[in-house]
Amino acid sequence: MSAEKAVLYARENGDRFLRELKDLVAIPSVSSDSNHLADMRACAEFVEKAVSSIGFDRVEMVETKKHPIVYGEWLGAPGAPTVLLYGHYDVQPVDPLELWETPPFEASERDGRLYGRGTVDDKGQFYIHLKAMESWLNSSRKKLPVNMKVIIEGEEEVGSESLEPFLAANHEMLSADVAVISDTSMIKKGWPSITYGLRGISYFQIDLKGPSQDLHSGIFGGAVKNPIHALTEIIGQLKDENGRIGIPGLYDDVVEVTPEERAAMAELPFEEGVFLKEVGAPQLNWENGYTPLESLWCRPALDVNGIWGGFSGEGSKTVIPSESHAKVSIRLVPDQEPDKIGDLFETYVREIAPREVELSIQRMHGGRPFLGDLSHPAFAAAGRALEKGFGTKAVYIREGGSIPFVRNMTETLDLPCLLLGFGLPGENAHAPNEWIDLENYALGTRSAIHLYEELSSI
Amino acid sequence: MSAEKAVLYARENGDRFLRELKDLVAIPSVSSDSNHLADMRACAEFVEKAVSSIGFDRVEMVETKKHPIVYGEWLGAPGAPTVLLYGHYDVQPVDPLELWETPPFEASERDGRLYGRGTVDDKGQFYIHLKAMESWLNSSRKKLPVNMKVIIEGEEEVGSESLEPFLAANHEMLSADVAVISDTSMIKKGWPSITYGLRGISYFQIDLKGPSQDLHSGIFGGAVKNPIHALTEIIGQLKDENGRIGIPGLYDDVVEVTPEERAAMAELPFEEGVFLKEVGAPQLNWENGYTPLESLWCRPALDVNGIWGGFSGEGSKTVIPSESHAKVSIRLVPDQEPDKIGDLFETYVREIAPREVELSIQRMHGGRPFLGDLSHPAFAAAGRALEKGFGTKAVYIREGGSIPFVRNMTETLDLPCLLLGFGLPGENAHAPNEWIDLENYALGTRSAIHLYEELSSI
Repeated sequence: MSAEKAVLYARENGDRFLRELKDLVAIPSVSSDSNHLADMRACAEFVEKAVSSIGFDRVEMVETKKHPIVYGEWLGAPGAPTVLLYGHYDVQPVDPLELWETPPFEASERDGRLYGRGTVDDKGQFYIHLKAMESWLNSSRKKLPVNMKVIIEGEEEVGSESLEPFLAANHEMLSADVAVISDTSMIKKGWPSITYGLRGISYFQIDLKGPSQDLHSGIFGGAVKNPIHALTEIIGQLKDENGRIGIPGLYDDVVEVTPEERAAMAELPFEEGVFLKEVGAPQLNWENGYTPLESLWCRPALDVNGIWGGFSGEGSKTVIPSESHAKVSIRLVPDQEPDKIGDLFETYVREIAPREVELSIQRMHGGRPFLGDLSHPAFAAAGRALEKGFGTKAVYIREGGSIPFVRNMTETLDLPCLLLGFGLPGENAHAPNEWIDLENYALGTRSAIHLYEELSSI
Repeated sequence: MSAEKAVLYARENGDRFLRELKDLVAIPSVSSDSNHLADMRACAEFVEKAVSSIGFDRVEMVETKKHPIVYGEWLGAPGAPTVLLYGHYDVQPVDPLELWETPPFEASERDGRLYGRGTVDDKGQFYIHLKAMESWLNSSRKKLPVNMKVIIEGEEEVGSESLEPFLAANHEMLSADVAVISDTSMIKKGWPSITYGLRGISYFQIDLKGPSQDLHSGIFGGAVKNPIHALTEIIGQLKDENGRIGIPGLYDDVVEVTPEERAAMAELPFEEGVFLKEVGAPQLNWENGYTPLESLWCRPALDVNGIWGGFSGEGSKTVIPSESHAKVSIRLVPDQEPDKIGDLFETYVREIAPREVELSIQRMHGGRPFLGDLSHPAFAAAGRALEKGFGTKAVYIREGGSIPFVRNMTETLDLPCLLLGFGLPGENAHAPNEWIDLENYALGTRSAIHLYEELSSI
């Protein structure tokens, strides 16, 4: 069984593969926004149909407490390994909408890229695999070289809450030899990359209440604690000006990056100047004692993702506001556990919060960090597949983002996980003008075709 | 000439005086919002008609760069002193609208109060004077015991920018012996008060820009300065946890409160428990070494009036925002000058701003602090008038709020200024559910009637 005919099929059908992705991007499947409930269902139905149409034995839409999971399987390769593919059909919110050059849900091509919300995170990436499977199943002997199980969920951007019970309840059905996820990025264009480490996350909202209502800042200013000041006092004690987090005990479980790994990372094509240009700020800022890349991949990071309180309109209003609010998240690295980090955060914030305000802390979604075992043969197989697909040697990298599902899946189902990302730096995954590289969309499909063959012998 | 008949006239027409105020409150004259330009003009026309209808010799609407000034005069008491009355017809914005128990622009009576935006700041208070003048001019010998000049402006809530050029250009026309302003509050119900000190103000907006666009906090968190953190670092250095301002040189021109004044203030009916209950926070917070009342009246105070940046919607979005913003104001005391304070603020913020973000500072409105000379006979005259109006001895107080016009007027026109406030603590002047006490509206009118007579002999 050879991949040649599948590769040919993919090349011949490349234009259609792109048109289908545009239709998928057109569905505004924003999982965090309750106004998009119907769109979420429509998107799940689109995916169900897409999996069904490529010739899978079994496809179903699994109901959950929130958004449905699409599950499919093709088990026509007895004796061969089984691959479990994971993807997610939900996307991030689109605001600020005014910064999009073209509408977020009308995918549009320019400069060799396809722009639109979800093009790379993660609709375009899991669709690469569906089209690679179609290329095997509709060419050659109508067979895949491995058995295939597919999970496409709808809650990745809000913490994958429904997935864990689904995994636990379907342990047998989901048994496999290796998991494959394409929801990450290559380190640089032309550098096909296998991600073996991800950061976890703990996300919180802090709400402060001071005066029972907004007060005149002239009449009351000087004798009343301003909830915005109280909030900035708290935030100021969460980390220092170089990003070192001030929460006691937070670094206790951090596994230090080894000298070998530091040496390998130093060989990667990470250029500070290019990164700075991509960021677009006057200067970078990272933790003392580490490189920027080490800070991004191997160190915890705390960020305020949003802050609001008082008057933000035109002109000047002289109030001491009654309330202030912030959304705060911490990126976690092995072996930090979100529940423990949540406890440390809450204990510390309660301790440092000024007594003149009422504090409440909401714990929002959390996800554990991931670190794969590079000695497993699946990693070498993936390296060969990428080299065939892209025509150049693959590199092994880590990533700063979180895919909470990965760690749950590898532990619950006890299997290794391959993260093959076809995104690129600057892709704006959670920002306006998200895009996927059109060449990567085609080479990614070709690589996935090779991947299934390479994995057939692990 | 006696006030008796005028007092009787005011009592007989009290219900109509209140109905007219409700009509005035119904005009949404929000000077800071460009959507209300037409309402501003309609309100000026209402005031022009109100001044004209009570029998003034001359009334006109003076055009400015922004909102018109209504000017009127009655000069039928040759040889008698001339009183210059100042008021403002513009009001504060109303948001958050959902916290109003009744619509802000439908004045409604409950619990002995009239609720609505502008009822006390300042529509109700200057209208007290118009009705007091009407009571003299429509009763007795159709005369006032003093000459009267009236200025009602429309930019007090946005810094009175058009007023200074108007004063400078009409120095002769506006010459008078004493100015009267009712735009302040009594220290407590039943305690008629003459305010002899006001704080000034400097108002700024700080805008920070970091990354060229919002970034994924997973991919970039740890190597990029978050503009919200940069902003909280700046705000954290503006004042300490007890309200002491950290800007170098800020206290240089502050006139320390004298032991005599501290003793007099200690006699006033300021109860910390009552004040705390009014504020509605768990605890108060004031500058070390001063009482709460001294902090409110005699010390500078810095407050963040609004802050915003990043994601503030439902759920969790994992971004490092591109921008962050804050509105900051400082209340000033004698002899602090807004321009100098603006320079100190700007120099300091530029110095402490993290280098990883671009900073811009907007200087918004400013106003100088005021301290009256209590030995001028007008203050004793005002005390007698209030005692006649309210039937109880008047007290002399300061106030934490700012009326930028006061200092300009007293210097430009070289005359003493009486601040006779008929508001009360808790009146929500810049907050939802603003109100004026209905008894004060009637007793204030009676006091103003007596005031003109008392001032005829200064």
